[in-house]
Amino acid sequence: MKQFEQLSLLFSDHLRKFSSELDSGRPSELYQPCSYILSLGGKRLRPLLALMACDLLGKDTQAALNSALSVELFHNFSLIHDDILDEAPLRRNQPTVHLKWNRNIAILSGDALLVKSLQVLQHYPKEEAMQLSALMCKTAMEVCEGQQLDMNFETQTSVRIEDYIHMIRCKTAVLLGCSLQMGAINAQAGPENQQHLYDFGMNLGIAFQLLDDLLDAFAPNAESFGKQPGGDILSNKKTFLLLKALDLANEVQKKEIVSILQMPGDQGHEKISRMLDIYKILNIKAECEAQADAYTNQALASLDKVKADSDKKKQLQQFAAQLLKREV
Amino acid sequence: MKQFEQLSLLFSDHLRKFSSELDSGRPSELYQPCSYILSLGGKRLRPLLALMACDLLGKDTQAALNSALSVELFHNFSLIHDDILDEAPLRRNQPTVHLKWNRNIAILSGDALLVKSLQVLQHYPKEEAMQLSALMCKTAMEVCEGQQLDMNFETQTSVRIEDYIHMIRCKTAVLLGCSLQMGAINAQAGPENQQHLYDFGMNLGIAFQLLDDLLDAFAPNAESFGKQPGGDILSNKKTFLLLKALDLANEVQKKEIVSILQMPGDQGHEKISRMLDIYKILNIKAECEAQADAYTNQALASLDKVKADSDKKKQLQQFAAQLLKREV
Repeated sequence: MKQFEQLSLLFSDHLRKFSSELDSGRPSELYQPCSYILSLGGKRLRPLLALMACDLLGKDTQAALNSALSVELFHNFSLIHDDILDEAPLRRNQPTVHLKWNRNIAILSGDALLVKSLQVLQHYPKEEAMQLSALMCKTAMEVCEGQQLDMNFETQTSVRIEDYIHMIRCKTAVLLGCSLQMGAINAQAGPENQQHLYDFGMNLGIAFQLLDDLLDAFAPNAESFGKQPGGDILSNKKTFLLLKALDLANEVQKKEIVSILQMPGDQGHEKISRMLDIYKILNIKAECEAQADAYTNQALASLDKVKADSDKKKQLQQFAAQLLKREV
Repeated sequence: MKQFEQLSLLFSDHLRKFSSELDSGRPSELYQPCSYILSLGGKRLRPLLALMACDLLGKDTQAALNSALSVELFHNFSLIHDDILDEAPLRRNQPTVHLKWNRNIAILSGDALLVKSLQVLQHYPKEEAMQLSALMCKTAMEVCEGQQLDMNFETQTSVRIEDYIHMIRCKTAVLLGCSLQMGAINAQAGPENQQHLYDFGMNLGIAFQLLDDLLDAFAPNAESFGKQPGGDILSNKKTFLLLKALDLANEVQKKEIVSILQMPGDQGHEKISRMLDIYKILNIKAECEAQADAYTNQALASLDKVKADSDKKKQLQQFAAQLLKREV
């Protein structure tokens, strides 16, 4: 996709300039972890969404570059702090900030990136900057809520599917919606177009996360997504798959699931294969795909409502399709 | 001071309403730690400074209530995260957030308070809100830098006095300057009055911190300040006192200081008394007081330059005097 590549290059260039300034900030122990995490790459989905929304609504993508930067900085702040919470050793196959430096530095440099994500919005004219900041603060609060809910679920005995969807909406999906709405604000879009693009991104985000749960269990080549195959099953993570399985299981199957959840880590292979058996019997893959499809359709219906050039909409439709197929 | 009390009550009322809304936020594991830390009290110096600046420049203090709230929320965010960094068990004689809940909750609820500190500024008209947000973001970055410098100093073998002053300026003093400038912005003050009030607060903050170092070592009743007397000496903290002593010491005295720094914790009493002896010989108390006086005088000179009713300035002069005498 040439045009995605062009937008990617445009953003990379903007990010590189910002990062190089950040990298020379003092004290270096605060700023180098910030430029380090930004250097680890990633798909830059959120910046791309901001740029595409701006383009869709007829404004030069340059106008959305600082919004794109803002959402990427915010995303990277959340990665630094989430990696501390999860005690994750690796992020994109490189050491996490709290391991490469230490936990205290990771807390502080995360704080700094969070502030920076709001500060870069001040380059916009006041009216626009205020709209963007308000949206970013609202989204940031929701992301914190989603992260806390995710932690709560770890120790909660029962989680309803609707609560799980609410959690992934907050933790992941709202930032995609926010990215698109910010690009729309930069294009001086009216509130309706802003809302439709937000809804497009948010529903797409939920579909994306559901398919992520699916891939963890069923991907033939899960390792290529940077994950241990069956990792969620091994860690008893309350994913859509597990919650749906508990929902649909009869008493005997429920007992089997409970006994699988109690299996120790050293029986990893057996644990995964017994859980996959249950998932297959209960047709969980199809259930999850149907749910993801429903959110994808809601997303596309929202995009459809945006008053904009239909040829340009195709780009976002294509992006959505590729995202869900993991081709971007 | 009746008028300080009136302003305190006005702010407490505003904070109570905000906290009670916050406390009912969901998930409660995210929001209750926020309302908890806000409930622990404290002198509310920063909000008072915002309200007094607004009053000084002829506007009703109501106008500065959300600025006052913003700086107090920011201050409390920094307390939650600093307490993690310092592994502090107590804050205002109550368990710290990371001990009462856990470290992950403390990281996330700190993040949430930081976002809230910027979000409450959105109640102001756009032009004013943008000025306030820009000042708050700039200050927030400096506070992160100051905190990181403070951590760096712990393992740095030599620290220059000017670097120490720069650290306390960032970590503590800029937020006092920011509080006053925010109140000035709410009063629609021009850039010069804003700057003079900022300088007043910043220099006052440095003087305050220097006297804090002094009290730690020399206060006859250090416990009443909620600190272990001589705690800085016990922990080899690189305070102004220690850095100045190293500066003024001859070779023999320098060796004595180094040997005191190497004393283990179980010789606490002797460690404190030997260091105090050195401080007395080198007249460190007077050196520190002279330095604090110099910053206090700079602060008062800046206040003097503010174009405002001189009777009203007396209130801020009085506040400064009481603050430095620890009577507020």
